[in-house]
Amino acid sequence: MNLRPPELSTSELDGAATFLRDSDEVMLTSHVNSDGDGVGSCLALAGLLRSLGKTPSIVLQDVPADTYSFLEGFDAIIQAEESATRTFDRVIVLDCPERERIGRAEHLITADAVLLNLDHHLANQRFGDSNIASEAVCSTCELVFHLASHMGLEIDPATAAQLYTGIIFDTGNFRYSLTTPVSMEVAAELVRRGARLDRIADRLYNNATFGSVKLVGRAIESLELHSDGLFATLHLTHQDMQLGDPEAAVNYGLMVGGVEVSALLKEEQPGKFRVSLRSRERVDVSALAHQFGGGGHARAAGCRLEGTADEVKQRLHESVNEALT
Amino acid sequence: MNLRPPELSTSELDGAATFLRDSDEVMLTSHVNSDGDGVGSCLALAGLLRSLGKTPSIVLQDVPADTYSFLEGFDAIIQAEESATRTFDRVIVLDCPERERIGRAEHLITADAVLLNLDHHLANQRFGDSNIASEAVCSTCELVFHLASHMGLEIDPATAAQLYTGIIFDTGNFRYSLTTPVSMEVAAELVRRGARLDRIADRLYNNATFGSVKLVGRAIESLELHSDGLFATLHLTHQDMQLGDPEAAVNYGLMVGGVEVSALLKEEQPGKFRVSLRSRERVDVSALAHQFGGGGHARAAGCRLEGTADEVKQRLHESVNEALT
Repeated sequence: MNLRPPELSTSELDGAATFLRDSDEVMLTSHVNSDGDGVGSCLALAGLLRSLGKTPSIVLQDVPADTYSFLEGFDAIIQAEESATRTFDRVIVLDCPERERIGRAEHLITADAVLLNLDHHLANQRFGDSNIASEAVCSTCELVFHLASHMGLEIDPATAAQLYTGIIFDTGNFRYSLTTPVSMEVAAELVRRGARLDRIADRLYNNATFGSVKLVGRAIESLELHSDGLFATLHLTHQDMQLGDPEAAVNYGLMVGGVEVSALLKEEQPGKFRVSLRSRERVDVSALAHQFGGGGHARAAGCRLEGTADEVKQRLHESVNEALT
Repeated sequence: MNLRPPELSTSELDGAATFLRDSDEVMLTSHVNSDGDGVGSCLALAGLLRSLGKTPSIVLQDVPADTYSFLEGFDAIIQAEESATRTFDRVIVLDCPERERIGRAEHLITADAVLLNLDHHLANQRFGDSNIASEAVCSTCELVFHLASHMGLEIDPATAAQLYTGIIFDTGNFRYSLTTPVSMEVAAELVRRGARLDRIADRLYNNATFGSVKLVGRAIESLELHSDGLFATLHLTHQDMQLGDPEAAVNYGLMVGGVEVSALLKEEQPGKFRVSLRSRERVDVSALAHQFGGGGHARAAGCRLEGTADEVKQRLHESVNEALT
């Protein structure tokens, strides 16, 4: 079954395939603080390269979250600083819109290195010698699937699990609008090839620490509604923040029907707040965050504000009201 | 694209198709307290029947949750008691393993009525004159999709949204092991035909009341771990229970990595607890609930216990320990 979206051209895929076949010792990397899609796509492509008889090494600036330790090959990931004696002249950068964002992994790349750049962000700067950067795919893992299919490579159960992980990470388990019908069909094919959808979702979504779940409870206890229920705030005090950083708690504001914007105030230092913003549909929270020197995407953004919690809520509240009128 | 699983035989589908084509005035119903799959499959099949020039009426014992009010046709659903003057001699029962479970909708069915029974529960009692009850599908909505495809019926955007709703309801948004690759491919096809996956998930998962979200926070605050982190309890006091019934709070116990069984104690009357049980993988909680006169499924069950909260936790704790050894 050929699932490739028409936006991915044969010539682009041929270019990437040639790069892979011409590689021997090759470094794979992704953006700093790699997420499920970065880690999954590096691990999967490394496995596919090994099946071609190549010798891939995954080098990341940061050790990825333990959430992904169930994926085959996780333990072989090299943290950039530990191995700075070694260098590579062939590099594949995955899920990374700008070359700078690979961070200290840069130290392992020779000045004359040849780069393949595989990504799904429209704003990708096409910094590679060969590039595929298409928003027709939901994730870099989906792109790696299409590339493997194009090359006729076998996807074994371990590779299927790695790719499935990236797809559900980047689509919010098929809940974000960037999920295409083809993304879902690719996921189905990965399940057919051995990805255990129940276990992978369990590892990603039911693998929190006791303390972080308790902190979510603390955040929910602080939930307040404003503007006739259109704006929700949650607030973690400086004391709470000593216990962890439950970023996901901001989503509990949007869980209340009718809420358009949810803000989580995290008091990192007394009187100094990091604010996470989420929007359901009507408000572009990146524009809102921008007013306070922050940024992000239309549906998820962040900024920093100072004052008392009530003052910060009031300033956000005024901006949300403006955005809603 | 033919997605039909081989377990659904042509003769079964032909039988159901003949029933639909031979119907004119026909009643559709589902089990009491109909859920997303029951409501979605009734609404979708009613729309498909209308496209065949038929006159379907959906009759349910209980008004479905407002969660589903965004689905086309929701307002035309008849509550069983309001219309007991009218009767039907052709009836389609959807997502209902036993005829008794349609509840008071029975009052509208004539003694000589002809029944079509469409379901995905293996234990279905095949009480219809024509039956399809197959576990090859994840949900009755998936079954209705295959039936519509078999009959060559057009699936419009409204029908696609109704069927998609049932599929994500019964698969936990593609997280439960009953989700097959074909279930996901059917979902993909429904998205292609106009189901908005982001909006439907938002309606199902982000549509709670302020009070019920706060109660989840209250439940999480009560979270305790026992047996070296294998057993989690959450406890809502009699006072908390005056504010609502956040059944889903039991899942927050399993959200902690390593927890095998989570129990939510709901003190419905002082000293009288309704207990919800959830299991990750190792324990069959229906067997555990059975010890206390309750029941359910291997991964989700419930029972009633009396005593102080600590006594109830202790009794559950002992049973969980036994089940884990």
